Amino acid sequence: MFKIMILLTKKQAMSDDDFARYLLGEHVSVAKKMPGLRKYVVNIVQKPPNREPEYQGVSELWFDDRESMKKAFSSTQGSLAQKDTENFASKSITLFIDEHEIN
Amino acid sequence: MFKIMILLTKKQAMSDDDFARYLLGEHVSVAKKMPGLRKYVVNIVQKPPNREPEYQGVSELWFDDRESMKKAFSSTQGSLAQKDTENFASKSITLFIDEHEIN
Repeated sequence: MFKIMILLTKKQAMSDDDFARYLLGEHVSVAKKMPGLRKYVVNIVQKPPNREPEYQGVSELWFDDRESMKKAFSSTQGSLAQKDTENFASKSITLFIDEHEIN
Repeated sequence: MFKIMILLTKKQAMSDDDFARYLLGEHVSVAKKMPGLRKYVVNIVQKPPNREPEYQGVSELWFDDRESMKKAFSSTQGSLAQKDTENFASKSITLFIDEHEIN
């Protein structure tokens, strides 16, 4: 399996609640339709009491392999998902991941 | 379940391979003994061709609840794990997470 993580910084004008609602609602409904997506986890960052974290969300997406991931993002649904990210995020950092579950 | 993510930036003097080897070896052997740790995933970031990513690793740790997480980190094993982080990371950012698996 090939995994990517996307670190998301919300648009400044958006509240934390609106960011979470949009990401888990509108965005997920578009992104989850990407072809070849095997697993999808959305992590909402809990705001600490006295500071603003650099990221408000972290998406994790799994594909069979790197080629499937590339195909997914260049598909119509992938383009829509990337375009939609501009509606709630001012910045996104994509990391390609080699995942190790520890036992 | 209560999840935390830790974004890790390697020590500058360390190679990517040495960072990954230390994190998956020495560090994991200490950290996985923390009391109350339910699940533990270590994500090694694959270096892109022409740039240095801000983070070289992302650890994910799951506990029953926030109280269990606090207890784990204030235990002897938790202190050892935190101390050991200085051996391979120049910076670490801890995020408290509300996790959503999308179906």
